Amino acid sequence: MQDLLQTYQYTRNQTKALCKPLKTEDYTPQSAEFASPPKWHLAHTTWFFEEMILITYFKNYHVFDETYSFLFNSYYNSIGERIERKNRGLITRPSIEKIYDYRTHVDKHITKLLELNTSKEIIDLTILGINHEQQHQELLITDLKHTFSCNPIYPKFSKTNYLTSKNKTTGWIDIPEGIYHVGYEGAGFCFDNELGKHRVFLEPFKISNALVTNAEYIEFINDKGYQQAKYWLDDAWHWVNQNKIKNPLYWKLIDGDWYQYTLSGLQPVNPDGILTHISYYEASAFAFWAGYRLPTEFEWEIASKQLDWGAVWEWTNSAYLPYPNFKIATGAVGEYNGKFMVNLMVLKGASTATAKNHSRNTYRNFFSPNTQWQFSGIRLAK
Amino acid sequence: MQDLLQTYQYTRNQTKALCKPLKTEDYTPQSAEFASPPKWHLAHTTWFFEEMILITYFKNYHVFDETYSFLFNSYYNSIGERIERKNRGLITRPSIEKIYDYRTHVDKHITKLLELNTSKEIIDLTILGINHEQQHQELLITDLKHTFSCNPIYPKFSKTNYLTSKNKTTGWIDIPEGIYHVGYEGAGFCFDNELGKHRVFLEPFKISNALVTNAEYIEFINDKGYQQAKYWLDDAWHWVNQNKIKNPLYWKLIDGDWYQYTLSGLQPVNPDGILTHISYYEASAFAFWAGYRLPTEFEWEIASKQLDWGAVWEWTNSAYLPYPNFKIATGAVGEYNGKFMVNLMVLKGASTATAKNHSRNTYRNFFSPNTQWQFSGIRLAK
Amino acid sequence: MQDLLQTYQYTRNQTKALCKPLKTEDYTPQSAEFASPPKWHLAHTTWFFEEMILITYFKNYHVFDETYSFLFNSYYNSIGERIERKNRGLITRPSIEKIYDYRTHVDKHITKLLELNTSKEIIDLTILGINHEQQHQELLITDLKHTFSCNPIYPKFSKTNYLTSKNKTTGWIDIPEGIYHVGYEGAGFCFDNELGKHRVFLEPFKISNALVTNAEYIEFINDKGYQQAKYWLDDAWHWVNQNKIKNPLYWKLIDGDWYQYTLSGLQPVNPDGILTHISYYEASAFAFWAGYRLPTEFEWEIASKQLDWGAVWEWTNSAYLPYPNFKIATGAVGEYNGKFMVNLMVLKGASTATAKNHSRNTYRNFFSPNTQWQFSGIRLAK
Amino acid sequence: MQDLLQTYQYTRNQTKALCKPLKTEDYTPQSAEFASPPKWHLAHTTWFFEEMILITYFKNYHVFDETYSFLFNSYYNSIGERIERKNRGLITRPSIEKIYDYRTHVDKHITKLLELNTSKEIIDLTILGINHEQQHQELLITDLKHTFSCNPIYPKFSKTNYLTSKNKTTGWIDIPEGIYHVGYEGAGFCFDNELGKHRVFLEPFKISNALVTNAEYIEFINDKGYQQAKYWLDDAWHWVNQNKIKNPLYWKLIDGDWYQYTLSGLQPVNPDGILTHISYYEASAFAFWAGYRLPTEFEWEIASKQLDWGAVWEWTNSAYLPYPNFKIATGAVGEYNGKFMVNLMVLKGASTATAKNHSRNTYRNFFSPNTQWQFSGIRLAK
Repeated sequence: MQDLLQTYQYTRNQTKALCKPLKTEDYTPQSAEFASPPKWHLAHTTWFFEEMILITYFKNYHVFDETYSFLFNSYYNSIGERIERKNRGLITRPSIEKIYDYRTHVDKHITKLLELNTSKEIIDLTILGINHEQQHQELLITDLKHTFSCNPIYPKFSKTNYLTSKNKTTGWIDIPEGIYHVGYEGAGFCFDNELGKHRVFLEPFKISNALVTNAEYIEFINDKGYQQAKYWLDDAWHWVNQNKIKNPLYWKLIDGDWYQYTLSGLQPVNPDGILTHISYYEASAFAFWAGYRLPTEFEWEIASKQLDWGAVWEWTNSAYLPYPNFKIATGAVGEYNGKFMVNLMVLKGASTATAKNHSRNTYRNFFSPNTQWQFSGIRLAK
Repeated sequence: MQDLLQTYQYTRNQTKALCKPLKTEDYTPQSAEFASPPKWHLAHTTWFFEEMILITYFKNYHVFDETYSFLFNSYYNSIGERIERKNRGLITRPSIEKIYDYRTHVDKHITKLLELNTSKEIIDLTILGINHEQQHQELLITDLKHTFSCNPIYPKFSKTNYLTSKNKTTGWIDIPEGIYHVGYEGAGFCFDNELGKHRVFLEPFKISNALVTNAEYIEFINDKGYQQAKYWLDDAWHWVNQNKIKNPLYWKLIDGDWYQYTLSGLQPVNPDGILTHISYYEASAFAFWAGYRLPTEFEWEIASKQLDWGAVWEWTNSAYLPYPNFKIATGAVGEYNGKFMVNLMVLKGASTATAKNHSRNTYRNFFSPNTQWQFSGIRLAK
Repeated sequence: MQDLLQTYQYTRNQTKALCKPLKTEDYTPQSAEFASPPKWHLAHTTWFFEEMILITYFKNYHVFDETYSFLFNSYYNSIGERIERKNRGLITRPSIEKIYDYRTHVDKHITKLLELNTSKEIIDLTILGINHEQQHQELLITDLKHTFSCNPIYPKFSKTNYLTSKNKTTGWIDIPEGIYHVGYEGAGFCFDNELGKHRVFLEPFKISNALVTNAEYIEFINDKGYQQAKYWLDDAWHWVNQNKIKNPLYWKLIDGDWYQYTLSGLQPVNPDGILTHISYYEASAFAFWAGYRLPTEFEWEIASKQLDWGAVWEWTNSAYLPYPNFKIATGAVGEYNGKFMVNLMVLKGASTATAKNHSRNTYRNFFSPNTQWQFSGIRLAK
Repeated sequence: MQDLLQTYQYTRNQTKALCKPLKTEDYTPQSAEFASPPKWHLAHTTWFFEEMILITYFKNYHVFDETYSFLFNSYYNSIGERIERKNRGLITRPSIEKIYDYRTHVDKHITKLLELNTSKEIIDLTILGINHEQQHQELLITDLKHTFSCNPIYPKFSKTNYLTSKNKTTGWIDIPEGIYHVGYEGAGFCFDNELGKHRVFLEPFKISNALVTNAEYIEFINDKGYQQAKYWLDDAWHWVNQNKIKNPLYWKLIDGDWYQYTLSGLQPVNPDGILTHISYYEASAFAFWAGYRLPTEFEWEIASKQLDWGAVWEWTNSAYLPYPNFKIATGAVGEYNGKFMVNLMVLKGASTATAKNHSRNTYRNFFSPNTQWQFSGIRLAK
């Protein structure tokens, strides 16, 4: 219990620490419907604890502000109406000061609750809330990068640029055919979409030790990769043409040299660096051009014990669909993962922006195949 | 060889037979980007034989009209520029008479070729062309239904309404766990996306003998199925709300009774009839509401020997992705299937509009999860 | 009365004569929301006589088909629901044969009515219907040209290409300052928007005898007219850039030479020919580039007695707004003109596609400033 | 000269005074493409002085920051590339502190310049810059109101709600027919679009002393004004239906009573209060319903000496078009007004948000007919 409280406090402080370099002006605007403002992340994660735990389990709890559920609910239909996603950047009030007060208020009550009450529901929901907050820590970074990238003066946010300078290993790993167990089983935390350990049959395959580098991807660009339909899925080809995509997100060609916007400002693209900010569409086209393919999520999971990972989220060739025994939890928590199981692709691994101890080899991250603003990259298979 | 020629001729005549009830005015317009006009289907299937076979294999062949490749190429980037998909309905010229001349011209040459030449390439491409034409026969019917349905006077096109009046069997089939073989292997024709027979492990499951009926679906509607977010995937819920979907395509509520537009005109919905014209989104919501789920494509394929099928295409819970050893053919034919392997769901079975002998239990039909205009229905699993 | 009957019959026959070169396939499709199919024009003009005259004034008249009011009402809200404008091209049934029967039926009854009845209401409405049909004769030609132009094989529709080969006169006309009378007054027919002869004060101005030619406009193009913001109104500049406009509608640059699609097929642009198919935005930019301006509708009207006109509709710098004593008629006829008096610009004159005896110097034609598909051109003033 | 300097300083301070109640968070977000953030207004007006005056006339002037021209140019194509209008709300950096430094820097230099230099160009441009800043003072208020109105907690910004509680006079003013002079002539400042005093002929008319009140407009609403096509222009009717407009902007019906969001928070609608935040479309529909019409800009100007005005901007029935002798100035200043002369309607008068001494009876304000977010109202004529 004391451990849980410490983890709670550590995680909550970590979120605030991430916001240290922000100016007040940075907290509110929203640069795209898919991205949320820092203020919103700070408030929403707090609301999650208030809504899922304090309102039900803290006797005589008074909600900090009745309007916050409307403002900071993300997508829980069962909890009620909420502000349109695209309008999150217009909440100039409450001020950021108020939101920090909100965090303090909720932290105080959660702390009290954890000191007194040891019911399994509260423990489980607190652990869920912590993992939820860790997910938003990563989103806070990726969303911020997107907002700053829209500013033509390329602000420098932090000392770290969140990029990985090179691969640690090379070569291919051989995995023989067989029945394998996938999915989570154990005493620790996992999300509901990982549950239901089950068997899959895998044909033999090879998977690369190294992630695709910037230099390798520049070869693809120079070989007119973005101009030739034959490398692309049909939807991908429309996406490339409609959006005039010619390179990974944040890359700019300046006088013949590639630069990229990073959270440390505009920097030259390092040839040895691990490629990131590419969509599934680009990952798939690159793999086809290179004569390989992407691994499935199960291949990745089985190979993962031998892989070094944590540099970028790795696109797999698996659609995000329910495991055989997937169950949707009752209540609002049931909306956490299950309702997104269509039209998305699975990513495995973790990125430099992922919170420590947050990911697992059974972890299933999922995004739309056109997503570029996450720290996403490519590992090849054959 | 004689057999192949007969099948060729039978199939080509069958396409014309389907168009018998059409007036000249019906051949040209296009009601939606996803649907094509009859004239276009008649010409495109002919172009396929000309482009893939005659130009390469018929010595000194003169193309019927140089402009047709631009007008009647569907989606083959490797062959060149083509008319925008949404503009297919503006090709008032060439007249339909000319298109029938085009068919005669190509038929004459293919017949000659098949009478003389027995190379494997030509035989394989002819068989592909025949299967291609059969696919367009079904599309011709579904597209026509869509166009007619946009006409407020509800034209009657044919005597058959293409609906199935009831299930032949009921109850559940039990399939035990195990390693199963899926995919096509054999001497007959199949599409490239079925190839590479391979092993999958299936957990034990049950699958329904009967398809969902109209009466069952009306229960879902009456239980406010379309008004409650909890039954729907998140993308599905947006789709329902943005498009104000309240029922299967072609259904109308008139004075409290359900009617549906059919190719025999507007008719009352038969409660025992097999439900059709629903999207994957609706299939998934219905299954969730009913306390079941949809089968995966592999579950369906393994159970299929025990199933009666052919009434409607059945949505599975599998995304359309490549099989482990999927290979993309070189040349234009390689664009047939592979490039669509993202964002689509697999349907298994066949419908009342499918050409005879066209489908197989390894057949993988695929459409976007919001597709309603195909003859698509629901089989439940658990 | 006999005269009116003759004019009626002449006009009705004229519409049919225009359709002579059409194939059945040409009657139905619609290439843009602003354009209507020939079948629709044929039916709508007929419906106008049925709805406005026969239903009210012909005793025991039976409407030809109850569904036609839904199908062929254009924009009369007071008459009831109607098919969405963008779906006019999907009315494959009724067939064109049926529509010709409809015309015969209505003609027979109108003829009877005119032979018997001489009430002022009927006479006035018949004259309105004739003028209405004449307007649709012009639209039939311009809409058809648009549809054909979308067909990459550039069909030839008629012997006449509807273009004017050169100006008859040159030089400037001087008009002194003064109070002038504008608007229609007299015994003949005019539209309600011309009524209310009234006084305006005009400052002195000059107006050109000649219309702008293709050669003059090519100079503007060659001087990078379409690439320089300074010549364009702000809305115009957005329009040019969003739609990538680089030339008048139907023009194509082929190997350095200008061609244009005409109803006689693709033809070289004649340098001396009168420029047409340009929007108000282009007219205004050209005038600014040339150091002149467009005349106002009143300047044009006052100068018109000295002008040769009839080649193209001429954009004026006047917004389409009500005259001081404009009155909206009661009933459906009141929707004819008045409700369009915002966001449109006035054109004066007539074009080669305008029906004979249809226009007047008080006539106010009106279109959106981005309209190109009418036979519209430029006369300069200063 | 000393006077001009004082006016300059007064105006610049006035802008800052308006921003007093703002929190730092309020300065950056943008709620709609047509509205700009406070930070942007503060910087843009400053950039105007820097760009139009200091760069040219202040010897050895160093621009404060090279990136600001890209960030804070509004629409001057001749000055160069600039940030897309819709992205003005993403400029979190420079911080608002920096922008206040920018203002101080520019103020210091303009002050020096005015103390030393007396050239006519500088004086004229300074006066233009002051008037420009006054225009942005009004926009700052209207844009802020829009942003705050999007926040479901309805922030209170100021003590004043910027509404006018009632009319001072009633009855009609009679104006006889005649030739009148309109447009500006004199020694004071006016915008280029007012120049060229010229003659117009007006037919006799009456114009109302009183502006339309909330109670009168509620009558229109209660009479199903928003539900009946017959009162509306065609474009207006589409606008009403597409945007589901049912009342003036900022009005809400709560339990049968009308409330409106004001800069002092949500308040009941005062029946006697002057109606505001309505579009030209609504003004025109109301006038038609009431049996009257809107005045033209010239009628208004001639009657203005007898009118009390300053409560709201008053929609006229005149399109915003050039006066007979309108000349576009050379250079960037030429883009100030002229390029907007299409698709907009003229408003006359001034509003409670207009800077003191800013308006004149020859002043031509102009907005798109669907504009609601300005303080706009209705005066009737007949």
